[in-house]
Amino acid sequence: MTTKVAILGGGGMATACASLLTESPETAVSMWVRKPEVAEDINVHRENRRLLPGVKLPDAVHVTSDVDAAVKDADFLVIAIPTEFVRQALTTLKPHLKGETPVVSVIKGIERETFYRPSEIITDVLGPRPVVALGGPSHAEEIARRLPASVVAASGELDLARETQQLFSTDRFRVYTNLDIIGVELAGALKNVIAIAAGICDGGKYGDNAKSAIMTRGLVEMTLFGASFGAEPSTFSGLAGVGDLITTCMSPFGRNRSLGERLGRGETLQEILSSMEAVAEGVNTTRSVYNLAEQRGLEMPITTEIYRVLFEGKSPEDATQTLMTRPPREE
Amino acid sequence: MTTKVAILGGGGMATACASLLTESPETAVSMWVRKPEVAEDINVHRENRRLLPGVKLPDAVHVTSDVDAAVKDADFLVIAIPTEFVRQALTTLKPHLKGETPVVSVIKGIERETFYRPSEIITDVLGPRPVVALGGPSHAEEIARRLPASVVAASGELDLARETQQLFSTDRFRVYTNLDIIGVELAGALKNVIAIAAGICDGGKYGDNAKSAIMTRGLVEMTLFGASFGAEPSTFSGLAGVGDLITTCMSPFGRNRSLGERLGRGETLQEILSSMEAVAEGVNTTRSVYNLAEQRGLEMPITTEIYRVLFEGKSPEDATQTLMTRPPREE
Repeated sequence: MTTKVAILGGGGMATACASLLTESPETAVSMWVRKPEVAEDINVHRENRRLLPGVKLPDAVHVTSDVDAAVKDADFLVIAIPTEFVRQALTTLKPHLKGETPVVSVIKGIERETFYRPSEIITDVLGPRPVVALGGPSHAEEIARRLPASVVAASGELDLARETQQLFSTDRFRVYTNLDIIGVELAGALKNVIAIAAGICDGGKYGDNAKSAIMTRGLVEMTLFGASFGAEPSTFSGLAGVGDLITTCMSPFGRNRSLGERLGRGETLQEILSSMEAVAEGVNTTRSVYNLAEQRGLEMPITTEIYRVLFEGKSPEDATQTLMTRPPREE
Repeated sequence: MTTKVAILGGGGMATACASLLTESPETAVSMWVRKPEVAEDINVHRENRRLLPGVKLPDAVHVTSDVDAAVKDADFLVIAIPTEFVRQALTTLKPHLKGETPVVSVIKGIERETFYRPSEIITDVLGPRPVVALGGPSHAEEIARRLPASVVAASGELDLARETQQLFSTDRFRVYTNLDIIGVELAGALKNVIAIAAGICDGGKYGDNAKSAIMTRGLVEMTLFGASFGAEPSTFSGLAGVGDLITTCMSPFGRNRSLGERLGRGETLQEILSSMEAVAEGVNTTRSVYNLAEQRGLEMPITTEIYRVLFEGKSPEDATQTLMTRPPREE
């Protein structure tokens, strides 16, 4: 029996998911792209020439700007658009959806106004339904090019996590199940704060020791914060935690690490933001996490220093000095 | 009151430790270098021109090849030589040591014949005494150049860990205490196996997703193995675990990662070893860990595949395929 999957989005991650899913002859994939001209362009060229140039979209994928055609018969909905557009897109889509279609979220981020995790936005707009979050180190281009990758499918409902595992797995894409959707979603957002710190190490030429230490102690803060919101600490030692953190802090292309690198070289946040096309997600996440940590009395020294550098004009050198000269403590 | 520290070794890490310790005017440091000509050369040039060129050894450090002069009054002994030379050096030194001088080990590795951790070699040769292991991301050159670094001082005796913390801490070198010396020492050896795997990803151009996933799932194996020998799983999420793993897998210079990179490009182990000056520690560690894991029935798929590539001629492509197509499982 054919499983029908509707993908929201036409960018890199949507294309990567479409490529994975169509490797199975039993999966039919349609892609809902909101702007008709973008849908048309992808359809004509069978690639997203702007966001994932050079990577072919399989012929079997049906690309359309007609939301009803894309989603009405879907057995699964895969959401692959930036966090800031999710609420609006789901509101448009909602009337066309039959019943409680389960949702696979590959969204990484936190809603700015509400601090909702992606799965919370989804059920807030669409009503209660099973949601699974796919997390881990997953550059879209590498997946679409069939390079090996391993990710985690997290849901409070193990059956759904297993269905998703089965749906997405290929001989180059390995999916582990995990019950901790809170941890997987928070890790995906929190790593962007630490990526700014790692970027500062790059820009300030602080060396490999310092960068590894920032990532490791950053992971301790991510874990502490997550646990305070009900996440499992072990999730942060897994693919969505340390795995995604490593790619995010190491890849030269990531927006958050790059922003940190420019801060480390001495540019101000205003200078950097005015020259960036899209806001680096980590800037807003830092503000939210800092405020929530304050409210809960969580000790997050790296997040605090990144907040001071971003919003209070503290120099990266002074922030580093503050971190290095804190009272001695146990690990 | 002056604390007298004797450092065994004259290489990069010994020089880095000497630089750190002499930042305090209350610490007197002597360095025991076994070969008189090497001791003389360091003394004349105040640098180790072969192993850490361009980095000055502070004037306050007394360098000598006279073991008695170096260690007889020592309050602390710091051991900074490769694992394979530890037993012999300690045997020479033993008659000159007064009482139960505590030992700080910065040795990373496992003794090949006995599979002893460094602290076990130390007490085996010198008799029972307090030992602390210093672990974490710590390229010697960066430390000697006063770039920031954070490490962990681990000992079953918290007082000794705290003394070591105080002894080594500077405003650029942050030391955390930890009670789990087994975990810190095993992590320092096991990471070299995973570094070979990470290097294979580099050499085979498998991409960032694959490399991060190998490191993350490698960390799971390290933790499993460590726990089986009495280590705390949390140590592997800390500076000596994931922290050291990140620098080891990312630095272009590491011997184990480089060996993996050449395997990934298609060279055989024999070709690589015949062109390397020193054996990459991870080769022997892989054999030992593989055998011990087999004995204990521990599931370590990455270690197993590295073993097959190193010692059974399996191709890295086939090893990757085996890893990617294992039965689906939970994280």
